[in-house]
Amino acid sequence: MPAELFSIKMKNKKAPVVTIPRLSFYYRALMEKSDTQFVSSQELAELTGTSAAQVRKDFAYFGQFGAAGKGYRVDFLKNSITRILGVDKKWPVALVGVGNLGSALLSYKGFLRQGFHVVAAFDSDEEKIGRELAGVIVQNIDALKDEIKLKKIKIAVVTVPQQAAQDVIDKLVRSGIKAILNFAPVRPRAPKSVEVHNIDLSIELERLAYFLSNSPRRIFGAH
Amino acid sequence: MPAELFSIKMKNKKAPVVTIPRLSFYYRALMEKSDTQFVSSQELAELTGTSAAQVRKDFAYFGQFGAAGKGYRVDFLKNSITRILGVDKKWPVALVGVGNLGSALLSYKGFLRQGFHVVAAFDSDEEKIGRELAGVIVQNIDALKDEIKLKKIKIAVVTVPQQAAQDVIDKLVRSGIKAILNFAPVRPRAPKSVEVHNIDLSIELERLAYFLSNSPRRIFGAH
Repeated sequence: MPAELFSIKMKNKKAPVVTIPRLSFYYRALMEKSDTQFVSSQELAELTGTSAAQVRKDFAYFGQFGAAGKGYRVDFLKNSITRILGVDKKWPVALVGVGNLGSALLSYKGFLRQGFHVVAAFDSDEEKIGRELAGVIVQNIDALKDEIKLKKIKIAVVTVPQQAAQDVIDKLVRSGIKAILNFAPVRPRAPKSVEVHNIDLSIELERLAYFLSNSPRRIFGAH
Repeated sequence: MPAELFSIKMKNKKAPVVTIPRLSFYYRALMEKSDTQFVSSQELAELTGTSAAQVRKDFAYFGQFGAAGKGYRVDFLKNSITRILGVDKKWPVALVGVGNLGSALLSYKGFLRQGFHVVAAFDSDEEKIGRELAGVIVQNIDALKDEIKLKKIKIAVVTVPQQAAQDVIDKLVRSGIKAILNFAPVRPRAPKSVEVHNIDLSIELERLAYFLSNSPRRIFGAH
């Protein structure tokens, strides 16, 4: 095991949670720098809308990536970030709820690009069960546990209606799921060992409406 | 103007940004309490997964809602929250980028429930222009500015590919849009007077992958 990798592993735990999305942004910026060997913290900062000091601080959590006076080695940095983020692996994903949002996510290409493969989809609607969508056959939700265990799935995307969400998440937890991306407009309960991220589109819109309703200059958009 | 409303308006500016999504959660909890006249901060806390002290603190930013010993009046609280959030109004919304995510959002019922009406949709793809989706005819992106001004639209949802995002957001800003919900995987530049919220699905998945890759007990989900 090379020394750098070891130092990444060792230092990993100190990084605050807000660093992780920034690593994703650095990674995307680096993807566009395939023509150069080195990149400076200043350049990375400009490409991602942060400061050079922040870039250096973020990388320092994971080890020593820079060469004095030269900046960071692009290739090494890219590999390190994919390893830190865990996107150098293939992640099998289960999707529960094949409504209009669920269907869209099934064919969303951004998932695949990052190594996320939706390998199972579930619904309780007889109309949807048995249908094929983006190469995946929709299964009865009763098959959830067996399928998740069989395919060793650890990540689930939840796109069911509000009333069904907690029940589905309980089922996923009992089936061994460890990370959930939840789109249902609830704050579900889950054990601490399971990481749940909520994306609530209505709440995002309400925040925007709040901004427009309360902005200093009166805006006459709503009627 | 009743005294309560005045006090809401006056105190409004002090509320920290994290309070707003909690108001959305309180509101949903209140929707299920239509059978009772009063609700306690403890009850609201349990329904929304926060503490009674937090509930009281959040409402205190906007004025006096509680009656000593009785808790909050459900009806008054509901009306106040809709007014604070600005969702008592109808918000015309423009959607730019009618790919699979954009199409799903066009027919997403959660928007309508909160008073958000997608009244215009745009794309640059000749194949899509002229088609009707969820009652809206997809227009050429060249018509963006005129249509936004004509329909007095202040909110836009952006679901275009990464490369097109900044250009589209510049166009929206020039057309008078004041709030943007951006799904394109970039951190777009925009003037301070325009509120941009980014929802980046890939980054959410990368955060989950990071969690799984770095969780204390080794998880053998990825291969």
